[in-house]
Amino acid sequence: MKTMAKTALLIGSVLLTAGCLADEHPRLLMTPADVRDIVEHVDESPSFVRVLTETQATVDGYFAELPDVPLPRDAGGGYTHERHKRNGISIMQTGTLFLLTGEERYAEYARDLLLAYSEMYPSLGEHPRKKEQTPGRLFWQSLNEAMWLVYAIQGYDAIYDYLDHETRAAIEGDLLRPMADFLSVGQPQTFDKIHNHGTWAVAAVGMTGYVIGDDSYVRKALYGLNGDGEAGFLRQLDLLFSPDGYYNEGPYYQRFALMPFVVFARAVELNNPELEIFRHRDGVLLKAIYACIDLSYANLFFPINDAIKDKGLATVELRYGLSIAYALTGDRTLLDVAREQGTFVLTGDAFSMARAIDAGDVEPYPYNSILFRDGTVGDRGALAVLRHGEGHEHQALVLKATAQGLGHGHFDRLSFLYYDQGDEIVYDYGAARFLNVEQKYGGHYLPENTTWAKQTVAHNTLVVDEQSHFDGSASEGEEHDPEILIFESNADLQIVGAIMNGAYDDVSFRRTQVMLDGVAADSALVVDVLTALSPNPHQYDLPLHFRGQIVAMSHQPESNARLEPLGEDNGYQHLWHRATADLDAGDSFGMTWLNDGRFYSYTTLAPVDSQAVFAEIGANDPNFNLIQGQALILRVPEADTYSFVSVLESHGEYNGTDEYTVGNYPAVTTVERYSENGADVIRLVTDSGEETLLAMSYDPDAGTEHSVTVGTREIIWSGYYRVIRTGGVAE
Amino acid sequence: MKTMAKTALLIGSVLLTAGCLADEHPRLLMTPADVRDIVEHVDESPSFVRVLTETQATVDGYFAELPDVPLPRDAGGGYTHERHKRNGISIMQTGTLFLLTGEERYAEYARDLLLAYSEMYPSLGEHPRKKEQTPGRLFWQSLNEAMWLVYAIQGYDAIYDYLDHETRAAIEGDLLRPMADFLSVGQPQTFDKIHNHGTWAVAAVGMTGYVIGDDSYVRKALYGLNGDGEAGFLRQLDLLFSPDGYYNEGPYYQRFALMPFVVFARAVELNNPELEIFRHRDGVLLKAIYACIDLSYANLFFPINDAIKDKGLATVELRYGLSIAYALTGDRTLLDVAREQGTFVLTGDAFSMARAIDAGDVEPYPYNSILFRDGTVGDRGALAVLRHGEGHEHQALVLKATAQGLGHGHFDRLSFLYYDQGDEIVYDYGAARFLNVEQKYGGHYLPENTTWAKQTVAHNTLVVDEQSHFDGSASEGEEHDPEILIFESNADLQIVGAIMNGAYDDVSFRRTQVMLDGVAADSALVVDVLTALSPNPHQYDLPLHFRGQIVAMSHQPESNARLEPLGEDNGYQHLWHRATADLDAGDSFGMTWLNDGRFYSYTTLAPVDSQAVFAEIGANDPNFNLIQGQALILRVPEADTYSFVSVLESHGEYNGTDEYTVGNYPAVTTVERYSENGADVIRLVTDSGEETLLAMSYDPDAGTEHSVTVGTREIIWSGYYRVIRTGGVAE
Repeated sequence: MKTMAKTALLIGSVLLTAGCLADEHPRLLMTPADVRDIVEHVDESPSFVRVLTETQATVDGYFAELPDVPLPRDAGGGYTHERHKRNGISIMQTGTLFLLTGEERYAEYARDLLLAYSEMYPSLGEHPRKKEQTPGRLFWQSLNEAMWLVYAIQGYDAIYDYLDHETRAAIEGDLLRPMADFLSVGQPQTFDKIHNHGTWAVAAVGMTGYVIGDDSYVRKALYGLNGDGEAGFLRQLDLLFSPDGYYNEGPYYQRFALMPFVVFARAVELNNPELEIFRHRDGVLLKAIYACIDLSYANLFFPINDAIKDKGLATVELRYGLSIAYALTGDRTLLDVAREQGTFVLTGDAFSMARAIDAGDVEPYPYNSILFRDGTVGDRGALAVLRHGEGHEHQALVLKATAQGLGHGHFDRLSFLYYDQGDEIVYDYGAARFLNVEQKYGGHYLPENTTWAKQTVAHNTLVVDEQSHFDGSASEGEEHDPEILIFESNADLQIVGAIMNGAYDDVSFRRTQVMLDGVAADSALVVDVLTALSPNPHQYDLPLHFRGQIVAMSHQPESNARLEPLGEDNGYQHLWHRATADLDAGDSFGMTWLNDGRFYSYTTLAPVDSQAVFAEIGANDPNFNLIQGQALILRVPEADTYSFVSVLESHGEYNGTDEYTVGNYPAVTTVERYSENGADVIRLVTDSGEETLLAMSYDPDAGTEHSVTVGTREIIWSGYYRVIRTGGVAE
Repeated sequence: MKTMAKTALLIGSVLLTAGCLADEHPRLLMTPADVRDIVEHVDESPSFVRVLTETQATVDGYFAELPDVPLPRDAGGGYTHERHKRNGISIMQTGTLFLLTGEERYAEYARDLLLAYSEMYPSLGEHPRKKEQTPGRLFWQSLNEAMWLVYAIQGYDAIYDYLDHETRAAIEGDLLRPMADFLSVGQPQTFDKIHNHGTWAVAAVGMTGYVIGDDSYVRKALYGLNGDGEAGFLRQLDLLFSPDGYYNEGPYYQRFALMPFVVFARAVELNNPELEIFRHRDGVLLKAIYACIDLSYANLFFPINDAIKDKGLATVELRYGLSIAYALTGDRTLLDVAREQGTFVLTGDAFSMARAIDAGDVEPYPYNSILFRDGTVGDRGALAVLRHGEGHEHQALVLKATAQGLGHGHFDRLSFLYYDQGDEIVYDYGAARFLNVEQKYGGHYLPENTTWAKQTVAHNTLVVDEQSHFDGSASEGEEHDPEILIFESNADLQIVGAIMNGAYDDVSFRRTQVMLDGVAADSALVVDVLTALSPNPHQYDLPLHFRGQIVAMSHQPESNARLEPLGEDNGYQHLWHRATADLDAGDSFGMTWLNDGRFYSYTTLAPVDSQAVFAEIGANDPNFNLIQGQALILRVPEADTYSFVSVLESHGEYNGTDEYTVGNYPAVTTVERYSENGADVIRLVTDSGEETLLAMSYDPDAGTEHSVTVGTREIIWSGYYRVIRTGGVAE
């Protein structure tokens, strides 16, 4: 096996260099040279000085007296949980402040807190509110314990030289070694698992090994408990990211997983430079850092799968990630993102970055259209990110054609998200969870995460017969990945196409989404064709979860005098059925809504008798756990193979401050579909009479020719698609 | 009559000075000296240069060819309406740019556009979509025509010296005089009305008189059509603002009304300085400008009555208002507000302000607790603004104890609004209207403005027997004003109390609200006692319209499996009845919610069997005109005299970015009421055992002594209230 041979070679090298660890501290994220650099040049970066001063103020306040070190009692969000979390971070902060200010009281703070933990830790059994699978001692789950150690070991490293031998012996003997042992040999099921919880564990244990000079910890961290490379950090690097740096649970967990990866890798780079860890697998760690940036809009991550929606680029994980990436690449566009973060971690890398920002070296970060392949070798579908325009207000469209994404994955194959003018317009609900809010189910995932947020109808994709994809089985979902048919991006157009087989027994579905410039006045038009392919009749629902206030509709819906849930199960029980508009075969249904001063118009064709159903989130929610929202559901009561053809246009402006409204009607007034042999021509005509034809064969083969008759014209093209701008209404 | 005598005197003086108008242009908002000052010193204000450059870019783009001057056709929001609006502003802009840049093309732009209007105007009859009461010619309503002239006359004034005699004759003879005649003698019902539409008309006509040197227009503008001072600008100044500068329709219309007042007053100041217009009525115009600032939170106006909620300090009206106020006062705290506006009008006053801001002269604007008396002589109730804390995140509470406020008034006596951390927390729906959005009922007030937004249940105040105040009759409402009982503000406490008689036949109600510092950890506590006084049994509802997500409740409510409207009429038909919690006599109902990272806890006493009803906005809304929202309604099914005693606490922080939660439980754990002879002691105990007693007699007489027994203690005090901090739980 190729991977095994490579790993074996690396094991050899680490053995050779294990004894060569420099006898200096700090040695994890900073070197003594970094410390000297900061101390000498700190005045060159006012923003770093500001963060340093703020950190001092915070720490000084916190250490007015020795912080409480309570016996473990509470689960996540509770007092002892939050207290220990903060203490762990404080150990790192005080140690770092000691290095950067030279003030001994900071070293004493760190030492006293470490000693307090050293006194308590040996007596702790398992946590009274332990999670069964992964119990901790200080915390309810060992994950938090590993995170604690990742922070605390940095503080210990920082004050190592300040401590006398006896104190070191106490801290290492009673706290650091027992904790590292507990996190490694004490729970092999986590430590050797190829999973982000495992990464936290190996990072904590490996960093501890570096600081206390015990290579056995380092070796376990890098190659797994039995040292064969089938587990451990390098194996995780090989398996947990796709070749494009995509993490298979999605960006929310990618950010979380990234932290131990980059922090530990930075320590490995310092202590085992011969491993060239940042070049490992064609530089996958750097790709993963960049991916985090590219998987965001308006500084927030695309909230696919289980995601807390307020997470974004300003998180501490990305502060570490960006500073390390900048240190490795010198890429000035990273400074653009870092400046938006508004604060810095206190490392040498971050200081270099802050200094460069303050010196005005910033260049705009280029947010581009990118396809992120999923899966270890990149063959398990992809997340497609299409972007048009520049800056904060650009348009972005995300097509989720990834693999299931383990236990945090949602049943949302080929769902999409759409952003414009800095806002989410067609959105993903994210997770049903109030993280760290104890009153809300202890801060855990809420029951509604399963009954609503994961279900297909909670997303912007096809639901067949009111059943979720794979009937809601994650293990089944892991067996079936979408296939990408096309992905292209050029100045005029961005296009992605994918097909999904296996989400339903006898229904496949294919979706092609195009962002087309030059049709509407002031935005790229989104054209969306979703085709369900089946030999048998089914009910097809296509939800559109949108933000904003409806201002106009082509059909007056029939409102229900009382509201009932839209269905019994699979998420439908959480939707109130508000109104229904009946669409006759041949109709085109249009709706305009207003969000944050911008208008959005959605036009969709109804080739058969169908319905536009209006729904609101909130039914069967006795504890007010669900967040208000609305959806338009296009419902086709019975069809076998069927295409949803829709156009979404962003237009105009409502300005309340200056009291004007422009462009409140969409430019596209006609949408038609002409179809032959499975190929389509979508005909678009604007209010000024401009005609655009979008021909699509859905056949990636560039060599095959297709033709569709549009009135008296025969449209002929080769390959997946062609855009024909006739410049006027030709007939 | 005193007012008449004064007016007569002023008429005398204007007659004397009418011939003395300087023979210079411009002469409205700027003088030739102002122009020279800007031209010579513009480089001293980069922000003014920026606005100047932006305006040039906008105007250059707009005048790439002569703008369309279409025949009037559309109502508000439509093409011809918006086009004429923009053309009027463009005439002013181009004229001003000519003065400030000296580039002749700008003068030509203004001239050509004025000539185009001169050609069209004489042929226009009434607008094809005219408003019956107040038809316009260029616009559907004459109000817009007056606004057009207020702008256009400034442009004409700016290029007056540039034009030859023949051109002036054409513009004045075919456009300015006919329009001024139409707006004055042509529609006396508006011109002589004491109303903001009248102010726009007199401003337009008066400014035209100054520029074309025709004193008859000026006289009509100042003293009404027949010149007796019973109408006209001075009369409007006497009647439309309260002595505190409060405008009786509320801040949204105050801003709108302010524009013609301040712009015309500035022109009067230049042309008839002997009128000392800004000293008129003890400087009421300056008070009105300051009031606009003080009637806002986070730069948005308190949205009481018919109000579009995105209106605030950044509007053009306040740009004029602030620059003029700064010119008159030199008050540097105004610069703080002006800086937030982000842009400037192009006048000499604004230039002085911009230069001062750029020179760093800004001082923080002091947002204070203020009582704004309503009514011409200040005897028709008041709007109370209580504030605690400083800066963007301070707490504010507004008690609406004003008079009806004419046709735009809502039926919301003693309703309140609460703000914290930059957000509205307990809110007012404002108007049901999408201004300028033609698809929404032509941009007019929606039918739901009457059926929902004006109704009492849409506000945070008492509803008796599901009937609105005054049974929804504005004329009846004008007959009954609230009475202010107390208003005090000091470092520890802000308090307001008011009583309302006449909103219901046999129910009066009194409300006292206190912001009390030093009880909760990190905010002032709001204590709210609303007492309904009646000899007969009624159903009492007290709604609380709040922003955020419920995270905990003391009582598990019973959710309805299907939603029905909460009632039949008076706004209740627009509320879905979502859930009900039954409260037993003696219970205390508590609810915590989370909004934008901050927790809010509301605790209310249930001395009798009652209910907490949960409702959502949106029933009977076939056109999706209503904006989603929720309310808690405390419902007492049957009582005569009854007190709602509630406490609202802002606390803690949820930080999603850095993943921590602090202070998610309220500090106040006990709320009790002890009552004797109509006086109350509210007993508050915090989780740390601190006890505070708030004694209230509701009797403004400082000399009367009151006493209430609390357990074994007799609490004795004089006057309306007393706060007793016992420092611990005494019993």
